[in-house]
Amino acid sequence: MPNPSLLILPGDGIGPEVMTEVRKVIDWFGANKNVTFDVAEDLVGGAAYDEHGVPLHDDTMAMAQKVDAVLLGAVGGPKYDDLDFSVKPERGLLRLRKEMDLFANLRPAQCFDALADFSSLKKDVVSGLDIMIVRELTSGIYFGEPRGIQDDNEGGRVGVNTQRYTTEEIRRVARAAFELARKRGNRVCSMEKANVMESGILWREEVQWVHDHEYQDVELSHMYADAGAMQLVRWPKQFDVIVTDNLFGDLLSDAAAMLTGSLGMLPSASLGKPMENGRPKALYEPVHGSAPDIAGTGKANPIACILSFAMALRYSFDMQDHADLVEGAVEAVLAQGIRTADLLGEDGKSPVSTSEMGDAIIAAMGGS
Amino acid sequence: MPNPSLLILPGDGIGPEVMTEVRKVIDWFGANKNVTFDVAEDLVGGAAYDEHGVPLHDDTMAMAQKVDAVLLGAVGGPKYDDLDFSVKPERGLLRLRKEMDLFANLRPAQCFDALADFSSLKKDVVSGLDIMIVRELTSGIYFGEPRGIQDDNEGGRVGVNTQRYTTEEIRRVARAAFELARKRGNRVCSMEKANVMESGILWREEVQWVHDHEYQDVELSHMYADAGAMQLVRWPKQFDVIVTDNLFGDLLSDAAAMLTGSLGMLPSASLGKPMENGRPKALYEPVHGSAPDIAGTGKANPIACILSFAMALRYSFDMQDHADLVEGAVEAVLAQGIRTADLLGEDGKSPVSTSEMGDAIIAAMGGS
Ligand SMILES: [Mg+2]
Ligand SMILES: [Mg+2]
Repeated sequence: MPNPSLLILPGDGIGPEVMTEVRKVIDWFGANKNVTFDVAEDLVGGAAYDEHGVPLHDDTMAMAQKVDAVLLGAVGGPKYDDLDFSVKPERGLLRLRKEMDLFANLRPAQCFDALADFSSLKKDVVSGLDIMIVRELTSGIYFGEPRGIQDDNEGGRVGVNTQRYTTEEIRRVARAAFELARKRGNRVCSMEKANVMESGILWREEVQWVHDHEYQDVELSHMYADAGAMQLVRWPKQFDVIVTDNLFGDLLSDAAAMLTGSLGMLPSASLGKPMENGRPKALYEPVHGSAPDIAGTGKANPIACILSFAMALRYSFDMQDHADLVEGAVEAVLAQGIRTADLLGEDGKSPVSTSEMGDAIIAAMGGS
Repeated sequence: MPNPSLLILPGDGIGPEVMTEVRKVIDWFGANKNVTFDVAEDLVGGAAYDEHGVPLHDDTMAMAQKVDAVLLGAVGGPKYDDLDFSVKPERGLLRLRKEMDLFANLRPAQCFDALADFSSLKKDVVSGLDIMIVRELTSGIYFGEPRGIQDDNEGGRVGVNTQRYTTEEIRRVARAAFELARKRGNRVCSMEKANVMESGILWREEVQWVHDHEYQDVELSHMYADAGAMQLVRWPKQFDVIVTDNLFGDLLSDAAAMLTGSLGMLPSASLGKPMENGRPKALYEPVHGSAPDIAGTGKANPIACILSFAMALRYSFDMQDHADLVEGAVEAVLAQGIRTADLLGEDGKSPVSTSEMGDAIIAAMGGS
């Protein structure tokens, strides 16, 4: 079997810095676990625009389609604010998502015990929290037609967007959620507004269909999305995997991320259909942005990007033990009180640099 | 000037019990403040169905259109679960909202200091919280056409709903929010997804238009709804009035309600256009449901319904001092440690009954 292949796109702002630390982790696996990745690196976002005049070169796009997984740092920055919409840095990321057809956005909300104090929620409500929100990412109201703003006949205007889901769009993201649940707590909660939206009724029925025909071993429940928002705030640990549409997932995954109190720590994955080798099309990236204000200062926290690589180990390469090893090392380092600047409160401790954090995680992984 | 008029619709379950306590408060104002309300009482929900075979009689509807304000208890119960959709108890409430054209749903999220421990959030994050979410209630994706589920041509189905907002629908709810802000902290934050939805772009532009032309004295900011969900969890006290559409308001108002930790305490108001006397069409009701499991046991908490009446004093009758008096009495009673069963933790104190809670609030209001 060929080596697993990775395309690394560091992007803009702190992207290259945090990706340098990921490279250390990748190299560690080569040196210690005999797991060698074929790694290619290329440009995305503003960095690609500076070089090619577009935020994603066609060659990069073609490479992304060929590799087993893409790992992206972050895109964007004030330098590119005035660019035309069509070549803004974010368009590079959107092109990747669209052409790779990454329909399942995995957003874990995990709270490390050592950081539970950062949450606005009580410690017992969030410590040990480990839930996964699966958001449909390529359809729904952000994409549906007709859409637009038109003049009415009375001097006013009308704004229209269309929520539209097909059987197959719902079933495929439901399958992604059930597959995930089997590797976790074996429970899926599906959220919609079937009480007031027909697209929600279809969502509920199709998720139930997939369950009844293909995943009867997984526990499935349904919840209205507004009740879901409430329950996420009240007692988030009741959930294992949540599957929901693009719009509800947008709000609920961000609310869930904020429950953990340390947004800068969270990874994400976007998965598509299985390729010929059985691995899904996959893009991994931290939830945080490019943080241009601290780029180049050594203040960036590389943990979210390192955890994104751990997700790649888990979901693209089926290397559960290796993923556990990386995540365990992050947890151990945090438990030791090692902190980048973003994780320090008022207590006067001095922060470690981006690179020192990477080294500490490598050290916690053991080996040479 | 004629007496202010009220139509009281106790409804089902605990509705009549909590409304009995509201009547005490109303009577107190007659005896102590020389404020006499012309009160009519009628049936809604299951109670109306039992009597008339419909969840809202036409005569009741006509009366609701004539009075200054409607105060509703709660509707629904297991007894009515098998009724046809068209005569379910909830249809009575929906008919009121629709025919009165109540487009602005006011959902305060207020946290009484004495109850801050009930919240899943840290005490300093929620104690003293006092924000108001104004949700557009009569348009948007829950009402837009086309809608439905259809077969596609390939053996699957398609579910469609339409988000549709007009200039005037947005402006009128924006005005409601600005008016409210003037009576509070003078700040409005409008939430939408203008980054990905044209209806969100129109929303943002029209809210800004109303601000620039009619409410320049009020501070206006805009936030994407997913960021709004995050910020509500992170530091809700940053907000004063939030105005948003029907769907986002559905999720955000429920999440905000849950922040307070005591859902059974929260009132709401739904307002429409001004009537000839200048007062808005108005329906006030607690956020909680009819709680059929505890109906008739004396365990119901009347505070949400009493606070709904306080909202009527404030928003229909412009009696700010009287509203303050009621709200202050509720706060004082809670500070004394008086609790109905729903507000008791594990500490072995004995609860007061629905009626004792009403009496305690009356006592705290002073006078005879
Ligand atoms: Mg979002
Ligand atoms: Mg709701």
